[in-house]
Amino acid sequence: MASSSEIGLAAAINILTAFAFLVAFAILRIQPINDRVYFPKWYLKGLRNNPLQSGAFVQKFVNLDFRSYLRFLNWMPAALHMPEPELIDHAGLDSVVYLRIYLTGLKIFVPIACLAFTVMVPVNWTNRTLEQSKLTYSDIDKLSISNIPSGSNRFWTHLVMAYTFTFWTCYILKREYEIIAAMRLHFIASEQRRPDQFTVLVRNVPPDPDETVNELVEHFFLVNHPDHYLSHQVVYNANSLSKLVNEKKKKQNWLDYYQLKYNRSNRSKKPSMKTGYLGLWGKRVDAIDYYQSEIDKLSKEICKEREKITTSSKYIMPASFVSFKTRWGAAVCAQTEQSRNPTIWLTEWAPEPRDVYWDNLAIPFVSLTIRRLIIAVAFFFLTFFFMIPIAFVQSLANIDGIVKAAPFMKGVMKVDFVKSFIQGVLPGIALKIFLIFLPSILMMMSKFEGFTSISALERRSATRYYMFQFINVFLGSIITGTAFQQLNTFIHQSANTIPVTIGASIPMKATFFITYTMVDGWAGVAGEILRLKPLIFYHLKNFLLVKTEKDREEAMDPGSLSFNTGEPRIQLYFLLGLVYAVVTPILLPFIVVFFGLAYVVYRHQIINVYNQEYESAGAFWPDVHGRIITALIVSQLLLMGLLSTKEAAQSTPLLIVLPVLTIWFHRFCKGRFEPAFVRYPLQEAMMKDTLERAREPCLNVKDYLEKAYVHPVFNNDNQWDGSDNGTSDDEWPKEPTLVATKRSSRTNTPAQSQRSESRRTLLDVTDERSCP
Amino acid sequence: MASSSEIGLAAAINILTAFAFLVAFAILRIQPINDRVYFPKWYLKGLRNNPLQSGAFVQKFVNLDFRSYLRFLNWMPAALHMPEPELIDHAGLDSVVYLRIYLTGLKIFVPIACLAFTVMVPVNWTNRTLEQSKLTYSDIDKLSISNIPSGSNRFWTHLVMAYTFTFWTCYILKREYEIIAAMRLHFIASEQRRPDQFTVLVRNVPPDPDETVNELVEHFFLVNHPDHYLSHQVVYNANSLSKLVNEKKKKQNWLDYYQLKYNRSNRSKKPSMKTGYLGLWGKRVDAIDYYQSEIDKLSKEICKEREKITTSSKYIMPASFVSFKTRWGAAVCAQTEQSRNPTIWLTEWAPEPRDVYWDNLAIPFVSLTIRRLIIAVAFFFLTFFFMIPIAFVQSLANIDGIVKAAPFMKGVMKVDFVKSFIQGVLPGIALKIFLIFLPSILMMMSKFEGFTSISALERRSATRYYMFQFINVFLGSIITGTAFQQLNTFIHQSANTIPVTIGASIPMKATFFITYTMVDGWAGVAGEILRLKPLIFYHLKNFLLVKTEKDREEAMDPGSLSFNTGEPRIQLYFLLGLVYAVVTPILLPFIVVFFGLAYVVYRHQIINVYNQEYESAGAFWPDVHGRIITALIVSQLLLMGLLSTKEAAQSTPLLIVLPVLTIWFHRFCKGRFEPAFVRYPLQEAMMKDTLERAREPCLNVKDYLEKAYVHPVFNNDNQWDGSDNGTSDDEWPKEPTLVATKRSSRTNTPAQSQRSESRRTLLDVTDERSCP
Repeated sequence: MASSSEIGLAAAINILTAFAFLVAFAILRIQPINDRVYFPKWYLKGLRNNPLQSGAFVQKFVNLDFRSYLRFLNWMPAALHMPEPELIDHAGLDSVVYLRIYLTGLKIFVPIACLAFTVMVPVNWTNRTLEQSKLTYSDIDKLSISNIPSGSNRFWTHLVMAYTFTFWTCYILKREYEIIAAMRLHFIASEQRRPDQFTVLVRNVPPDPDETVNELVEHFFLVNHPDHYLSHQVVYNANSLSKLVNEKKKKQNWLDYYQLKYNRSNRSKKPSMKTGYLGLWGKRVDAIDYYQSEIDKLSKEICKEREKITTSSKYIMPASFVSFKTRWGAAVCAQTEQSRNPTIWLTEWAPEPRDVYWDNLAIPFVSLTIRRLIIAVAFFFLTFFFMIPIAFVQSLANIDGIVKAAPFMKGVMKVDFVKSFIQGVLPGIALKIFLIFLPSILMMMSKFEGFTSISALERRSATRYYMFQFINVFLGSIITGTAFQQLNTFIHQSANTIPVTIGASIPMKATFFITYTMVDGWAGVAGEILRLKPLIFYHLKNFLLVKTEKDREEAMDPGSLSFNTGEPRIQLYFLLGLVYAVVTPILLPFIVVFFGLAYVVYRHQIINVYNQEYESAGAFWPDVHGRIITALIVSQLLLMGLLSTKEAAQSTPLLIVLPVLTIWFHRFCKGRFEPAFVRYPLQEAMMKDTLERAREPCLNVKDYLEKAYVHPVFNNDNQWDGSDNGTSDDEWPKEPTLVATKRSSRTNTPAQSQRSESRRTLLDVTDERSCP
Repeated sequence: MASSSEIGLAAAINILTAFAFLVAFAILRIQPINDRVYFPKWYLKGLRNNPLQSGAFVQKFVNLDFRSYLRFLNWMPAALHMPEPELIDHAGLDSVVYLRIYLTGLKIFVPIACLAFTVMVPVNWTNRTLEQSKLTYSDIDKLSISNIPSGSNRFWTHLVMAYTFTFWTCYILKREYEIIAAMRLHFIASEQRRPDQFTVLVRNVPPDPDETVNELVEHFFLVNHPDHYLSHQVVYNANSLSKLVNEKKKKQNWLDYYQLKYNRSNRSKKPSMKTGYLGLWGKRVDAIDYYQSEIDKLSKEICKEREKITTSSKYIMPASFVSFKTRWGAAVCAQTEQSRNPTIWLTEWAPEPRDVYWDNLAIPFVSLTIRRLIIAVAFFFLTFFFMIPIAFVQSLANIDGIVKAAPFMKGVMKVDFVKSFIQGVLPGIALKIFLIFLPSILMMMSKFEGFTSISALERRSATRYYMFQFINVFLGSIITGTAFQQLNTFIHQSANTIPVTIGASIPMKATFFITYTMVDGWAGVAGEILRLKPLIFYHLKNFLLVKTEKDREEAMDPGSLSFNTGEPRIQLYFLLGLVYAVVTPILLPFIVVFFGLAYVVYRHQIINVYNQEYESAGAFWPDVHGRIITALIVSQLLLMGLLSTKEAAQSTPLLIVLPVLTIWFHRFCKGRFEPAFVRYPLQEAMMKDTLERAREPCLNVKDYLEKAYVHPVFNNDNQWDGSDNGTSDDEWPKEPTLVATKRSSRTNTPAQSQRSESRRTLLDVTDERSCP
């Protein structure tokens, strides 16, 4: 175990590293040339087009105002300065709720740390167990529970503290849940009209021999929601079109580039190019003409493809976005069951248009359940057996293997440096590469599982990532050995010895986790603000690839919060903090510093850097809450195990009460708050509808919703090709006009008789809402 | 272990017992005097008023037609004769679905038994392991898995059979689920108009300083369901009234009795009575006058009490039955969330009026969650520690204790017979009494937990009873020892040795469970049809208490299905059958006979005896399905444990696949079928609404629903006192007339502005539906 001086040294190194990162950031960020790296959010919002400073040519790249260097840390107060409502406006509710995770961490751990230091440190310190034991020990161990003799009455302090910490954590969790639920509802109530408020995603439209999906959806909703149905938008399988559109976009970009070049050269010399690969060989042609003709060709193809998609029924997926006249109608449809067969006509709230994951819209119910099973099994193997393929790769990457595969490398291999490099680094690299790709693997798994929105994909990936981290980082560090070895041990151990095994080794790992917190938490967060990777990539792209202003726009990589990797990382610190709060309270200040630093840094990043990809209105909070509860229960079980090795068995029954209460608290919160994150209360919907009707009696919702849920490729296409704008409206089946049913075989459906009537009602209501 | 001849003897005894019961039943049932015991259902339905035979005075009590004694078993084909649709009509869907549990048992176990006997019996029999082992063994053991040598390749047969049985069981379960879901939906679709189709139970109406519950509910639903809200019925706390009404009913009964007596004696002598306790002392008065005055007094009190309840707001509970104009409106309201605070305005389908458990309607959300916690903990202690108080009672009930407490008993205690009786029987009686009261205890727990309908109470009690039986009967018989000892062992055992411990002792307990099946299953079911207890009680009551025809009606105790005790009992046989199917197939025929016999017996009872207390349209099937799945998984885990002791470890990975697949199957079924039992699809609702509107355009739903959800005590009152019928309509706040809101402090609710408009719509729609 590391002594306190070693910890001090490590702390000094990490503080210096973090400080160096911060200083580097402070200098780099005020250079105009880096403006697009450190303030992309403002560019994206259209609030900034050029670096703020202007003047001499040099000043375009380097900041020569030396006074600004003196104020190099003033981004911190600036980051904290923006009030929450403005931040919601600026970056969305998701970002604000995400920041509240850090705040929650501070709220939980600052009082816990204070209490632990005033009460538990003296209790632990004033013992002589370790001194008498003649074991090697450090000052840090003297502060931990290890210093208390077995069977001592002092364990009552730890017991009382465990209760106090649990109640405090639960209190904070409940308050945060309350606040965030209120924020979410307020946000939903006060936000602008949005298409997804009126729209429901219908999946698994059953195949019908007589009618197309388009007709079927219309008939079904005209019959079953006669007073509220407005229109619908079928979902097209537009992958081929999407490919063509992307190609056209690329060619258009080249055309812009050459036209710009031509204009810059004062139209003196028409630019030319070669048609072959990368412009390296082939016939030399006039570039502008060439691209113009290529684009024309692609435009025609796109038109044809689009016509094919919109006219042929085989491109229509059995899913549809159904819009309603009122929010109330949509809320009703999203929350109720439509058909007696619960696997068809599945309705759910439509995600935001930008949040839709189009590829998964057409997966049928049976396939979905099978996919879940496959992914559950696959994730189990990924978590517990991921070391096997990596070990295999590592065994391939040894020197003998390389020499055998590539005999010409033999000479190189004999050089000592290369040899030691391969032996020392390659095996680690295989693991490192796996860990880098892990989030992507988990994301692929979620995509395969069939979620229909990006936000849901990210939430699911985050859950998996957390489980992976819990097993392979937390448990893996405490009980050394691969996850599979642990699993094997646990299966062969009795239920009550598992917490004992883990609990007993917890105090010994405190120093390891202190170092981990400093390296991953402190330096890692400070590294995040420096944005080294985007900085380098931006300048590389700027230097090599950027041809037009649009390219520069795209070279700027603002990134996003990436909930799927960020949140599980924070959760690890909650887990560490709660587990060590009673056992080794010296860990707590390190955790507190992490939460504080991360809060400031991410607040700055959210204000200035990250681009918001979607707005789920904080829908992930139930997950966050659930994981903190899990950490709490784990900490209680481990404490129980630890105390039972300390011959403080009389405390076990008292400690069993804690997880029972915590689980009950979780269920209470689930019932009390979770519905606010899953459903949309009718009262709220009705209130918004009424207000809107009063404010804008002439509003035509139908026009507003018409284009909202068109596949982005159709929108993109229009964006990139202005000439199509006029014609596309005609091609597009924009209005669900009344289709005479082709159904003749069925007699038990009241569709035919109902439809004319409901159509009438539909018209009546529309009339009512139209202006006098 | 018992030899086959011992089993044969036990079988013979039990078959004879069962046969004796059946013969006794066959003789007793055709005696006219017992007609009300064996055919109460027909009396209750009003299809029978007197025993069928009539003639001489003797024939009123004894059947003298000797030919009918020869056909003494013809009730069996008669019971099977009634077709299912007629049975649904006669006894409700619940009964039919309940019978299908037995049918499912037959469908699962008949093919399994056949297959097991053709394949596994030869495989087990043709070994010599037991012969060579020189252990004592019986013929039955030779048929079981114990006869196969360790590590033999023959275990592959068992493995394949385990797969076959699992797939067969799942196939049958899926088909049954499908059939029952269809039956349920068909039943709901084809049944008569019922108040609960239009009504939603709203709980946790928030307290409001400005408005009463009555006004608040009306305003809330007028605002949030303007097009569909029809009326509502507040719930009164009428416990005191209920007591008065019961008292009046008793007095009325006495009055009838004396009046009858007076009339029979040709009005010659007015009956008199004493006013004291049980008429044994006190002043002698004229009985008819006395009761008349008493009833008048009570009537006045009831009037006063009722006025108090209906006028004072403190008797109004924060719950209400809200009725809608259409089934669609009710389906929408029941399935959606109403308020932004998910713990108030909780809506759920209203149970049938007769199914409502009135006492629980007013429990607030927080109290509910706390009650759940308390009951969960209490049930844990009940299951695992119920032996402790019983052992305490038993220790009190020994001879020394009795002598000490009651010295005068000393002489009696010295008699050998009394002594041995006390020592031998008393301890057992304490346990027996506990087991008899267990269902009532569990029912009390469910009531405390706060369910609002009797059907839900019974379902929850059944779940608990099943868990108790699983732990204390199934596991308790396999591993001898109390549940707490088992729990202690399991905690100290590793996860993979628990199935091994249980699995290894399973083959040894086969004979025990065969005997259990015969005693509890065969003889028990045959005893059920004899109805010994109701028979004796009916004749006792008839002899001692029955004064009027109404009394005779009440002395007849038809009983009901009592799902809460019956279903867990069946489930035990599913568990035994599935666990022993692979291990000791000889058990299967016994199980099959049980299911067959029980099916016939219960079909007869349902047709002729049981009274239907409520109609939940088979809402309990998901529970039944879930428990069979549990039994399947338990059987797979135990087989895995057993095989691992047989050195057939290579089979473990293959067996692990089975529970994974079974759990997945369960989840699939849950998603595919369960919604049909929980929600009411809008399509169905709309279809019924449309049909009804076409058939009865003049229907006034409001009148129809007006009295449906009045507390039964108000209805009863009217029933027992005709004179009140006229006046009660005036007293009763029957129509939710438009109440001017007293709210003034709130500005953010659109209630005021919305209400007048919605009121208009309400009137419009009512107008539309009224006849031209």
